[in-house]
Amino acid sequence: MPVETIRWEGDHVRMIDQTRLPAEKVEIEIRTVPEMVEAIRSLRIRGAPAIGIGAAMGLVAALLPHRDAGSDTFHERLEAFASELEVARPTAVNLRWAIERMRRVAREHRDMAVPALWERLEEEAVAIFEEDREMCRRIGEAAQGVIRERAGILTHCNAGGLATSGYGTALACAYVAHERGKAVRVFADETRPLLQGSRLTAWELMESGVDVTLICDDMTAATMARGDIDLVIVGADRIAANGDTANKIGTYGVAILAREHGIPFYVAAPRTTFDFDTPTGAQIPIEERSPEEVTHGFGSATAPAGVKVFSPAFDVTPHRYIAGFFTDAGLLEAPFETSLQVLKEAVPAAVR
Amino acid sequence: MPVETIRWEGDHVRMIDQTRLPAEKVEIEIRTVPEMVEAIRSLRIRGAPAIGIGAAMGLVAALLPHRDAGSDTFHERLEAFASELEVARPTAVNLRWAIERMRRVAREHRDMAVPALWERLEEEAVAIFEEDREMCRRIGEAAQGVIRERAGILTHCNAGGLATSGYGTALACAYVAHERGKAVRVFADETRPLLQGSRLTAWELMESGVDVTLICDDMTAATMARGDIDLVIVGADRIAANGDTANKIGTYGVAILAREHGIPFYVAAPRTTFDFDTPTGAQIPIEERSPEEVTHGFGSATAPAGVKVFSPAFDVTPHRYIAGFFTDAGLLEAPFETSLQVLKEAVPAAVR
Repeated sequence: MPVETIRWEGDHVRMIDQTRLPAEKVEIEIRTVPEMVEAIRSLRIRGAPAIGIGAAMGLVAALLPHRDAGSDTFHERLEAFASELEVARPTAVNLRWAIERMRRVAREHRDMAVPALWERLEEEAVAIFEEDREMCRRIGEAAQGVIRERAGILTHCNAGGLATSGYGTALACAYVAHERGKAVRVFADETRPLLQGSRLTAWELMESGVDVTLICDDMTAATMARGDIDLVIVGADRIAANGDTANKIGTYGVAILAREHGIPFYVAAPRTTFDFDTPTGAQIPIEERSPEEVTHGFGSATAPAGVKVFSPAFDVTPHRYIAGFFTDAGLLEAPFETSLQVLKEAVPAAVR
Repeated sequence: MPVETIRWEGDHVRMIDQTRLPAEKVEIEIRTVPEMVEAIRSLRIRGAPAIGIGAAMGLVAALLPHRDAGSDTFHERLEAFASELEVARPTAVNLRWAIERMRRVAREHRDMAVPALWERLEEEAVAIFEEDREMCRRIGEAAQGVIRERAGILTHCNAGGLATSGYGTALACAYVAHERGKAVRVFADETRPLLQGSRLTAWELMESGVDVTLICDDMTAATMARGDIDLVIVGADRIAANGDTANKIGTYGVAILAREHGIPFYVAAPRTTFDFDTPTGAQIPIEERSPEEVTHGFGSATAPAGVKVFSPAFDVTPHRYIAGFFTDAGLLEAPFETSLQVLKEAVPAAVR
């Protein structure tokens, strides 16, 4: 039902070139490490889970021509490719995690014949993909108890399929509802400065046949006042032990507006986004982005040269604004001191 | 101290070409009716008060070559010019009002010698300008009791000097504070979809030496949470009898965020913006804007083709969110049922 962000084609990777969105849907084929590194660096593929999947699949594709090589040569190539791939985007944890997982498979099967080992690696890359897909679907399912027929769902930024194997986190809730015939209506904040809402969220929902309406960020309150919104669902970058949630700038404001209108505000995230070593949101550092993203947002200057800009990348929504978390371990509601414990005790999910 | 949006040069009009902002400050000279009509139509000059001033001054400039004509010819030219000018922008009330005021002067001095009448008309156009300037300054002065030294002032859209004779309404409060040496810091929401905050507000404050920081609309809550904002001041398009205020889309959301952070929210407007025939905000119609303003922000498409868009031009802020009104009749605070009466009883201001 959601778009196929990335897929394994038996001997190569096929994925949507996200730099061409939303103007056109172009799929590219990747067969070598330099191609995958370039695709990751130029954001043809983006989002931590999707990058991890891409790197693992890219490694397998690049090793295909070496399937007839001797064992030592194959393992040498694998290590050389892995080292190139894992530095394609230095801050992407999933990238390093996925590559390390592939390395471990190779180490654990050091004595296996090369053609069989290649197939084992192929299985592992596909497993990384499928585990992500399954985790996203579980997140989406956790939301179904609170999503009614024809519900109006507001979302901010893109916690969607394009950043993952296809379902996403916040958008998984809408995709699963849509699959179950609920005819949900999604309202997408455009999400300045980088417009992930209009460029990505609106695109992937339209592409999947889910009803979507685009609004500017300063239209959220008016849309809520009109009675169009039944619930808010956003993704998360990091969730503190008490439930305080860091997410794309603007999320905190949406949470306040939702409460003022009596609209429940939910966060959709896999258990790996919960950071129990961070007691509250006050300990989460907020990075600032380049002023040019604000002053030159649309190709040309839209602000006076040299204007001072404050552009935080994220904000923190205090847990008191959050009605619950849709996770791969189900819906977790307040009080979070007790409900989040289930995640702490569970085995960490494989992907992320 | 504020920029000189428009001024009378004795025989022609000189004004900032606002279509070149914020990239460059270009001033143009206007001597004929077609030039002024073109300038109004292509938004080189914009904002109801500024357009009214421009039309009156443009009329005087265009009549200069006819100062030696016979009385009948002069009055004929005046009527022809007035008819062309008053339809330059059909919805601008101030435009029709200013032109009508000029016509009345001509009618009342039907027997005056033409050169003397031209001077009388020149005086009237300059009076329209000066009355607007005085009214804006009074609005700015009404705010000084609540603006402290180094106050952080958040504003939305452009209720600034560029729309008026120079001081504006919301921004008049900052300009007067700045003139009194208060070193205020203004935070300007960029104000999607048309970015009046980044293109105009940030530009005119920088140009006037007032400290300004530009933020995206979805950064307002985070900026408030950081403690940067002491008060909010916005303009108004129409204020109902109970104080409910229609203003640029996004204003209502800012009012909610302000209250949640304990920040007082003020509206700056001349008495002519108060509409006592409209009992509450519920009776104010909200026009919707073209989807292209959202999907094709600045030259290129930033959203998928054909996406559904909800783009209200204004929203209504209920009076319970408003701490007070800065008006040319002083600061009017809640309860508004009683405090707004002073405006009803007063003689309407000459301009607007």
